[in-house]
Amino acid sequence: MSTTPIIGILTDFGLSDGYVGVMKAVALTIAPGAQLIDITHQIAPQDVEGGTWTLGMAWRAFPVGAVLLCVVDPGVGSARRAVALEVAGRRFVGPDNGLFTYPLADDSSAAARCVALDDPRYHLPAPSATFHGRDIFAPCAAHLASGVALESLGSAVEVASLVRLPIALRAERRGDAVVGRVAHIDHYGNLVTNIVSQTTRAALARPLARISLGQWTISARATHFAAGPVDEPFFLQDSSGALAIALRDGSAAQRMGARRGDVVTLRGMDDTSDAAGDAGRE
Amino acid sequence: MSTTPIIGILTDFGLSDGYVGVMKAVALTIAPGAQLIDITHQIAPQDVEGGTWTLGMAWRAFPVGAVLLCVVDPGVGSARRAVALEVAGRRFVGPDNGLFTYPLADDSSAAARCVALDDPRYHLPAPSATFHGRDIFAPCAAHLASGVALESLGSAVEVASLVRLPIALRAERRGDAVVGRVAHIDHYGNLVTNIVSQTTRAALARPLARISLGQWTISARATHFAAGPVDEPFFLQDSSGALAIALRDGSAAQRMGARRGDVVTLRGMDDTSDAAGDAGRE
Amino acid sequence: MSTTPIIGILTDFGLSDGYVGVMKAVALTIAPGAQLIDITHQIAPQDVEGGTWTLGMAWRAFPVGAVLLCVVDPGVGSARRAVALEVAGRRFVGPDNGLFTYPLADDSSAAARCVALDDPRYHLPAPSATFHGRDIFAPCAAHLASGVALESLGSAVEVASLVRLPIALRAERRGDAVVGRVAHIDHYGNLVTNIVSQTTRAALARPLARISLGQWTISARATHFAAGPVDEPFFLQDSSGALAIALRDGSAAQRMGARRGDVVTLRGMDDTSDAAGDAGRE
Repeated sequence: MSTTPIIGILTDFGLSDGYVGVMKAVALTIAPGAQLIDITHQIAPQDVEGGTWTLGMAWRAFPVGAVLLCVVDPGVGSARRAVALEVAGRRFVGPDNGLFTYPLADDSSAAARCVALDDPRYHLPAPSATFHGRDIFAPCAAHLASGVALESLGSAVEVASLVRLPIALRAERRGDAVVGRVAHIDHYGNLVTNIVSQTTRAALARPLARISLGQWTISARATHFAAGPVDEPFFLQDSSGALAIALRDGSAAQRMGARRGDVVTLRGMDDTSDAAGDAGRE
Repeated sequence: MSTTPIIGILTDFGLSDGYVGVMKAVALTIAPGAQLIDITHQIAPQDVEGGTWTLGMAWRAFPVGAVLLCVVDPGVGSARRAVALEVAGRRFVGPDNGLFTYPLADDSSAAARCVALDDPRYHLPAPSATFHGRDIFAPCAAHLASGVALESLGSAVEVASLVRLPIALRAERRGDAVVGRVAHIDHYGNLVTNIVSQTTRAALARPLARISLGQWTISARATHFAAGPVDEPFFLQDSSGALAIALRDGSAAQRMGARRGDVVTLRGMDDTSDAAGDAGRE
Repeated sequence: MSTTPIIGILTDFGLSDGYVGVMKAVALTIAPGAQLIDITHQIAPQDVEGGTWTLGMAWRAFPVGAVLLCVVDPGVGSARRAVALEVAGRRFVGPDNGLFTYPLADDSSAAARCVALDDPRYHLPAPSATFHGRDIFAPCAAHLASGVALESLGSAVEVASLVRLPIALRAERRGDAVVGRVAHIDHYGNLVTNIVSQTTRAALARPLARISLGQWTISARATHFAAGPVDEPFFLQDSSGALAIALRDGSAAQRMGARRGDVVTLRGMDDTSDAAGDAGRE
């Protein structure tokens, strides 16, 4: 059996207008056998940070060879670049506005390659100025899935020149504390921070570890949601490895009035020297 | 042509976070040719009853051989069992918390087989405590779709020991009345009850039949939505065979202030002895 | 490689109930290799006009040979006809209530063919009166995708007898003005009108061109969203070619209190005689 190419799709198009379906129809016209997987289309309109986080969480689940088609593109039609890049065997297609910050921070990104999507042979004829998802990004993603080489899509781009977003930075050690941010609020109202795996495991192991967020100080912790205390926010290691704050049978975000970008400070790690060694997202 | 395995997916993950896309990427990595069908991902967070109803409505539409991957799992990481079972030729994968109540009530369920998902060879390496959908359920579903035998996934489980939910019970005859519940409120605001096909047809045939729900008594009925009275709730047989209450061009749930679990009482069936013979869902 | 048939699906079912998944399971049971593409399932309940616009925007992106399965069907179970038609190489399946107005207005529609879905061999056995999407439309669409000829599905229907919706009409020239309507409000709050490509380009080229909508007069314009003025509605040519009104970083619909169907009047085109030549949607 020949490999079936996978195209993962992430946009802020929502599901009500039909634009996602149009992109998919264009992609399958070019790559008839491709398997299309929706990552999400409910990034808030033009919320590049939100798209960046979600792609950062999801991309490693896709197999080597997959194409990730990402369109959160408030600058469509402007001078922002349209790019395709390859990191760790996955190909990413979309605007150069920071969406690819997490893959670009991957250990393997030293070997990343990038091109500008400036060869019109791989676009729809007469692209609009307002819907590059349909006219440029979907066709280029489908051509990649069909076996076209990355370098065929356009001229080389210096990987170092690609836009990175500050929110995708890891939490930092400041004195005895680890200072991070709420990087994402999920569907259940869990607050996912940019404090990463090793620090989170260290915090779970230290009885005095506590997290401050606004008026709140949280020292309760659990190994999984159902083991958390009743009616009180607690922290745990979420499925991406990050430190997350949750409320059993409820929304921690709502209870705590928390928002993405809020500062979280982890203290009580004083008895260890390794705790902040890898602070921030892996 | 070889058969293309189908995996139907039902979760409470919502569509905004990207978690469904991650599960699908994992599944297609293991079963590259599988066809993925979303049943829904908008079960209210942790609403096992809601997931149970929806799976009960949907599963028979899937062909023999299909795999149904179901993750509404408030107990993730706790001692609740992770299982796979086979009923009527379909395979079901998910937590043992009642989600599979309807298939387990199927006539053919005497021949059902069940295993616990305790063989780590069919999981992702180092499963998290918080996202078994990605780490255990999706991989096991994909292995089933790829031809792995149910019994390979883990140790045998007594089918009789699986959790069943009371809401999935059929309506009951009490004296002259049939007493049931609102089992589901759909997207249009229709109230779908647990009064099943034969009773519903009998009620439609009896001019004196009427339904009480809270303050409301409903005797109007119709064969289809467009034939209902204007601006007045009526009952009809819905597409699953169940008795449903609807409002033409509006939401019966909103008009009547009805909620899932509300008691519905069917009276005026006195002139028949067979009416409640099969009360409840088929 | 044999061609993989594509089935695009548009409904008002929403995504929460599982009905879309049921339709897909039925379709893949009949046409196991088909590729299913969601156009949208979030047409407002029973909003035939909304479905008509979205199908009109989307259908041309689907390749020749595709099947478009469209179910916005307030009249399900009534005497409204169930039909399949072929226009420009695409096949359309759904109720005859105006959903197909845009394809029927296509230049190639003179060669359109249509049948009533009255041959029960291509339906599920014992169709319900309430869910023709599952019982009639999905099976017929899947049979078409599997190679069954349109004419096999039922008796011939005169194309001229099919229902057309007035909202799908093009904008009209009245004296010096072009009078149209808001045909669609998209996910971002952009107002898409029924003033089409050539007129839109003419308006963008004429400095005095201005659009009235209720209390508002709009003369600002841009080539793409990011080039629009800050905090002021402007017009541009949207990706379908139509004249649209947008607000940078916000919702024009919300700011202007606009609704679908609102009248838009384009003036200041006086210096040209060709401006309204093709007023209305292409």
